Amino acid sequence: MNMSVKLIENAVGRMVPTEINGQKEIPYMGVGKFIPKKRKYNSYISTNAEFPADGNKKVKNLKEALQKAGLANGMRISTHHHFRDGDLLANMVFDIAHEMGVKDLIWFPSASFPCHEHLIPYLEDGTISRIEGSMNGPLGKYCSEGKMKGVAVLRSHGGRYQAIQDGEVHIDIAIIGAACADPFGNANGLNGKSASGLLGFALADSQFADKVIVATDNMVAFPCVPWQIQGNYVDFTVEMDQIGIPEKIVSGTTQITKSPDRLLIAELTARFCEEAGIIKDGFSFQAGAGGTSLAIGEFFCRIMKEKGIKARFARGGSNKYLVQMLEEGLVEYILDGQTFDLEGVRSMRENSNHVWTSPFTSYNYHSKGNFAGMVDVAILGATEVDVNFNANVVTHSDGYLLHGIGGWQNCLFSKTVILPIPLFRNRIPVVREEVTTICGPGELIDVIITERGIAINPLRKDLLKKLKESNLPIKSIHELKKEAEEICGIMEKCVLSDEIVAAIKWVDGTVIDVVRKVL
Amino acid sequence: MNMSVKLIENAVGRMVPTEINGQKEIPYMGVGKFIPKKRKYNSYISTNAEFPADGNKKVKNLKEALQKAGLANGMRISTHHHFRDGDLLANMVFDIAHEMGVKDLIWFPSASFPCHEHLIPYLEDGTISRIEGSMNGPLGKYCSEGKMKGVAVLRSHGGRYQAIQDGEVHIDIAIIGAACADPFGNANGLNGKSASGLLGFALADSQFADKVIVATDNMVAFPCVPWQIQGNYVDFTVEMDQIGIPEKIVSGTTQITKSPDRLLIAELTARFCEEAGIIKDGFSFQAGAGGTSLAIGEFFCRIMKEKGIKARFARGGSNKYLVQMLEEGLVEYILDGQTFDLEGVRSMRENSNHVWTSPFTSYNYHSKGNFAGMVDVAILGATEVDVNFNANVVTHSDGYLLHGIGGWQNCLFSKTVILPIPLFRNRIPVVREEVTTICGPGELIDVIITERGIAINPLRKDLLKKLKESNLPIKSIHELKKEAEEICGIMEKCVLSDEIVAAIKWVDGTVIDVVRKVL
Repeated sequence: MNMSVKLIENAVGRMVPTEINGQKEIPYMGVGKFIPKKRKYNSYISTNAEFPADGNKKVKNLKEALQKAGLANGMRISTHHHFRDGDLLANMVFDIAHEMGVKDLIWFPSASFPCHEHLIPYLEDGTISRIEGSMNGPLGKYCSEGKMKGVAVLRSHGGRYQAIQDGEVHIDIAIIGAACADPFGNANGLNGKSASGLLGFALADSQFADKVIVATDNMVAFPCVPWQIQGNYVDFTVEMDQIGIPEKIVSGTTQITKSPDRLLIAELTARFCEEAGIIKDGFSFQAGAGGTSLAIGEFFCRIMKEKGIKARFARGGSNKYLVQMLEEGLVEYILDGQTFDLEGVRSMRENSNHVWTSPFTSYNYHSKGNFAGMVDVAILGATEVDVNFNANVVTHSDGYLLHGIGGWQNCLFSKTVILPIPLFRNRIPVVREEVTTICGPGELIDVIITERGIAINPLRKDLLKKLKESNLPIKSIHELKKEAEEICGIMEKCVLSDEIVAAIKWVDGTVIDVVRKVL
Repeated sequence: MNMSVKLIENAVGRMVPTEINGQKEIPYMGVGKFIPKKRKYNSYISTNAEFPADGNKKVKNLKEALQKAGLANGMRISTHHHFRDGDLLANMVFDIAHEMGVKDLIWFPSASFPCHEHLIPYLEDGTISRIEGSMNGPLGKYCSEGKMKGVAVLRSHGGRYQAIQDGEVHIDIAIIGAACADPFGNANGLNGKSASGLLGFALADSQFADKVIVATDNMVAFPCVPWQIQGNYVDFTVEMDQIGIPEKIVSGTTQITKSPDRLLIAELTARFCEEAGIIKDGFSFQAGAGGTSLAIGEFFCRIMKEKGIKARFARGGSNKYLVQMLEEGLVEYILDGQTFDLEGVRSMRENSNHVWTSPFTSYNYHSKGNFAGMVDVAILGATEVDVNFNANVVTHSDGYLLHGIGGWQNCLFSKTVILPIPLFRNRIPVVREEVTTICGPGELIDVIITERGIAINPLRKDLLKKLKESNLPIKSIHELKKEAEEICGIMEKCVLSDEIVAAIKWVDGTVIDVVRKVL
């Protein structure tokens, strides 16, 4: 980025720019400290008079849709990531843009995956100028190496909704892939070969983009029910042969961990929740779909069955294990943000207690509350945690940007946030003096659970008191760090360039940290 | 209204003001002719930081909610009419306002009913300055007699959404009564003693009002599923003993007509639809819940069974007859805007093919199309029709404003619009030289069906051609008028004051006609 831009120290002590890609930015001010005094973004009023009287918005193909939507140099193009590593659509969009000779597009995905490595040539030849969105894998590496023209901007799922709603990001054209749609543009992710469960990550795009294209490989007669995306927001619809690779959309490969260390972490987490009084009748939880999280879910099941209690709701990422809990009556509702396997899709289609949500309902910080705050315990991951409980989820300790934020920042607003993490990975400590990139402020992170001990944030005096007599291995975060260093040695802080390649937004749109070019 | 305001002749030849209640207005320009070039209304950005961290927005009672919402002189207060003549809430709101000594409120209901006669003293003592919304019965009479301070503004269901969305109407406080809600503000009309089926008429209010209060007599633990109203838009929630009178919310008294004339009209309508080729496999229809409409539905059933076909969808107002068609498989989907009986509520709760809609999806003319245009045939009522097929639904021929517009204007965009009406009522012709109030332009009204003949709009050459060899009593609209006059005599046009007491908006926010004070 332009090196003349002024850097300011923000509320977590990081130097961040006051301008990114030519746009003014606000440094992170602390949790709940930034109170916006402006209005939401308002798109132009449309009128039915300019749309087909019979509601049929079908055009011949994706190219025609993009042409009619006025695809032009410099536009911001959004896509969603419900197809995960099975996405074909985003790649096709930029193939067409390239073929049309359009340049300097900004790609604004809700996240990108290894399959989008396909787009690197377009970053090189100027079809795409930059990516604003979480980058998993190859694109993150590309960005880390300073090869991307502009500065990447990473946001949480909720932060992405917030940024669009607040007008920080203006979308020219949104392309929404759907497993099922009607010619009017009503769409869902439930029915069809490209079933992804839901389409919540595209909700803001549909509501606020200038032009909205719905593409489907399963066009049905109006009405496509349920309409997770509402046709009233849609300009054009396209019927295509294939928009995703089913087995990569819902891989179904997630399995409970078999690693003894991870199982120990899972067991400690469940025991901690039990002793802290979190697991009680009517409680709620959110856990990821990783192997450790799934194991924690299994331990939760056992405890609930023993106690004869049930949870009021679980937040997903859903998968077969969570669905089983719902069907066994251990959980009354699944409030789901994305389905990770076909069992999740089936359950969402069949069971009205398996409810599809969106980043608006669940995570938008610039609304009148959201669902995250009502969750009793959120169990999340991290690449690094520091002695102030600040955590990192986007970079590795070598500085490489390899992961997205997902809903992680948003979930930090749950009543209790627990990070079950290994004390070290590949002989690199996870608990450290300082994290490479701050994604979440320590004040929101309550408990660190490792295979060698549990650290409770000193701010949570209530938890410290409750666990005072516990047999669990409660330690201080400094003790955990020391143990990690005794095993791995003291790591030197990785040396990075001054050049900023990416900015990390907080849930309120302020800048919490930056990512610098690796040397 | 201020008599110095300039009147302009609009596209249907009516003299309408360019200013109403101090706000600039655009005269009706013709169907699809007004193309707005401005942005939607945008409310201020909220932040979670200013709402309870645990999502519990419950306050002690309705008064506290109104106080916390900042109820003050001159504010615009909105309510919805899903409780119909069983609504207790709107009356309570103004009882509290009166008790607090607040003055000059503008009441902005989605419609009002005879039960709201309770509010006339508040119109007299200045608690309420005027009503902007459809008025059924006593309040309409009150307005017609010129007793209300300002000018009433009547809008269709879709027009109300449009006006709020476009910022023509700013709501200070919305009060949303719900049969079921959680402390966060998620709400639906499905579960509880005050079940009204759905809450779509309050959708725009929830999205755009400054402050939103959800009141319920059935508070459940989060999550209240489905969330027809999303808690993310809600400021305060209130638990109350009773918000409506169940037997007046869903009266269940609607019966198929037994009148021989009405039955004849119904039969002619069904036969017309059959001969016009409208009733075919996969077709769609919208009919009201009046006695004649229900009879038409029965005739449709018979024809579908004979032909062995089914409808893709029916638009409701749902009732037990429509539910029966759904359950018998004659209709694949009900897309429902309001439920008229408990069978409608039950079906919507149980059957995922009985879908709740909103004025946004169904009727908003300022979006990228809406559902109305996809309906093959809409069967609607009218108080008067003129020789140019213009129709009236709000005033009687004596000039009294006694009905609301409902979704009537919006449904005129269906592919074929049929008005099955008696040729005269109480010896007053329904088909006349000129209607008292133009609510819908003749170019959108295709067929008038009376017990004494059927008139096809000359614009529909296709229908005239299709029905050329028909044995149905096809006549010209002039012939129908003449027959009416032969029986009833030629009516003198009712003489009204110059004073304008109400304005009738078209679906795009322009002024299509006015209502004048009765003498």
